[in-house]
Amino acid sequence: MINYKAVIEYDGTEFCGFQIQPEGLRTVQGEIVKVLSRIFDKETKIAYAGRTDTRVHAANQVINFKCGEELDLYKFKWSLNLLFPKDISVKFIEKVSDTFDSRRDAIWREYSYFVVNDNYQNVFLKRYSILVCRKLNLDLMIKACKAFIGKKDFTSFCSPSDDKKNKIREVFEFEIFKNESFGLSEIFVFKIKANSFLYNMVRIIVGTLLEIGKGVRDISTIEYAFKNNNRDLAGKIVEAKGLFLTGVGYK
Amino acid sequence: MINYKAVIEYDGTEFCGFQIQPEGLRTVQGEIVKVLSRIFDKETKIAYAGRTDTRVHAANQVINFKCGEELDLYKFKWSLNLLFPKDISVKFIEKVSDTFDSRRDAIWREYSYFVVNDNYQNVFLKRYSILVCRKLNLDLMIKACKAFIGKKDFTSFCSPSDDKKNKIREVFEFEIFKNESFGLSEIFVFKIKANSFLYNMVRIIVGTLLEIGKGVRDISTIEYAFKNNNRDLAGKIVEAKGLFLTGVGYK
Repeated sequence: MINYKAVIEYDGTEFCGFQIQPEGLRTVQGEIVKVLSRIFDKETKIAYAGRTDTRVHAANQVINFKCGEELDLYKFKWSLNLLFPKDISVKFIEKVSDTFDSRRDAIWREYSYFVVNDNYQNVFLKRYSILVCRKLNLDLMIKACKAFIGKKDFTSFCSPSDDKKNKIREVFEFEIFKNESFGLSEIFVFKIKANSFLYNMVRIIVGTLLEIGKGVRDISTIEYAFKNNNRDLAGKIVEAKGLFLTGVGYK
Repeated sequence: MINYKAVIEYDGTEFCGFQIQPEGLRTVQGEIVKVLSRIFDKETKIAYAGRTDTRVHAANQVINFKCGEELDLYKFKWSLNLLFPKDISVKFIEKVSDTFDSRRDAIWREYSYFVVNDNYQNVFLKRYSILVCRKLNLDLMIKACKAFIGKKDFTSFCSPSDDKKNKIREVFEFEIFKNESFGLSEIFVFKIKANSFLYNMVRIIVGTLLEIGKGVRDISTIEYAFKNNNRDLAGKIVEAKGLFLTGVGYK
């Protein structure tokens, strides 16, 4: 069997998340597996770097799968993009070693969260960002985000329903900046890179920072929340639609 | 009667163009007039800066309309955005002089055309750009676009069905550059500003430049086409979905 790694992009709006659901809801994994199984004419499983929730998007999700044939990767990529639904694309495919596993071998994941700070909802960005009307203080949010960098217990910054025992994660980088979305309008980008993330972690961290940026929460509450391991001490979770899995790194 | 000017944004994908169609097809003007007439409880007409075709978008279309009431513009903008369909937003409203006319008073219009130069269709940009797989030579296209600047007869670069007698237009600025679409992928932007445009003029000019960028047309053919006033001498028209009305200027 030959092991192939692929970088996938999807618009999460019309999916019930990445992972296959037993009830037969429309999922990204479900659609990919359906197409691969059809091409190879046998049930084909995939591994993936990060599970994304309903309405969360990915610009660079990484998957891998095994198949018995040596593939012409150029033609295969075209075939996949013809057979995938309109909201999934494959960007890149390569042959990798037998032992490569897109989930287990990932050493970092990067997520980006997009916020439009205006008094109306931009029609081009509404599927991919949230609207915040109150003026955001960018400098204050940049200052505040430093508190999340490093190896920490993120119990206060994840969903209480996350049942992983170990809540320690290491955030390597965290940047907040303004960007022009294809020259049409300004958008705030929250870009965070960590070894891995707990359930809802990015959306709770961004929610906390937005409260700071709006001036309704003090920076010091972050350290207090870290010390007391209590989800209630962090900010409100923000909507899924502004979140993108933007990168996965390997050794 | 008080005259109001508004800046409007719309995703053209699900509209049969801007202008009201007699057959009752879904149009941007039709939707705006419906909402205004409902709010003012009387039939309300609008003037507009530029007519856009089916599937063409606008980031900054300008309209104006008259109404008998003094409006609270802050509240009125919120009401409009609540009543407009999801693919139209109002960005800005102001009171203007009685004589202001968004079409007649416009001294320039700016359009931008978006092209993804890759070997797969980006899922986030497919409604707003076209895909060109052959590698584009940006420097060559930048050099070529200078030939369109100035006051010229654009007969070769508009639809033969444009029945305006005077085909002379003045292009003030033309820029071609690469831009990161909200940090996720690279896009080529063709940004052109003129006093006004003939029917299909931007899409035929961009089509001609793309043929030059792909290496299948020589730069000198532009001057030849200008000299001979023949549509067949210019390039193929590109799809509507990559085109945005990005600005309108007034004195």
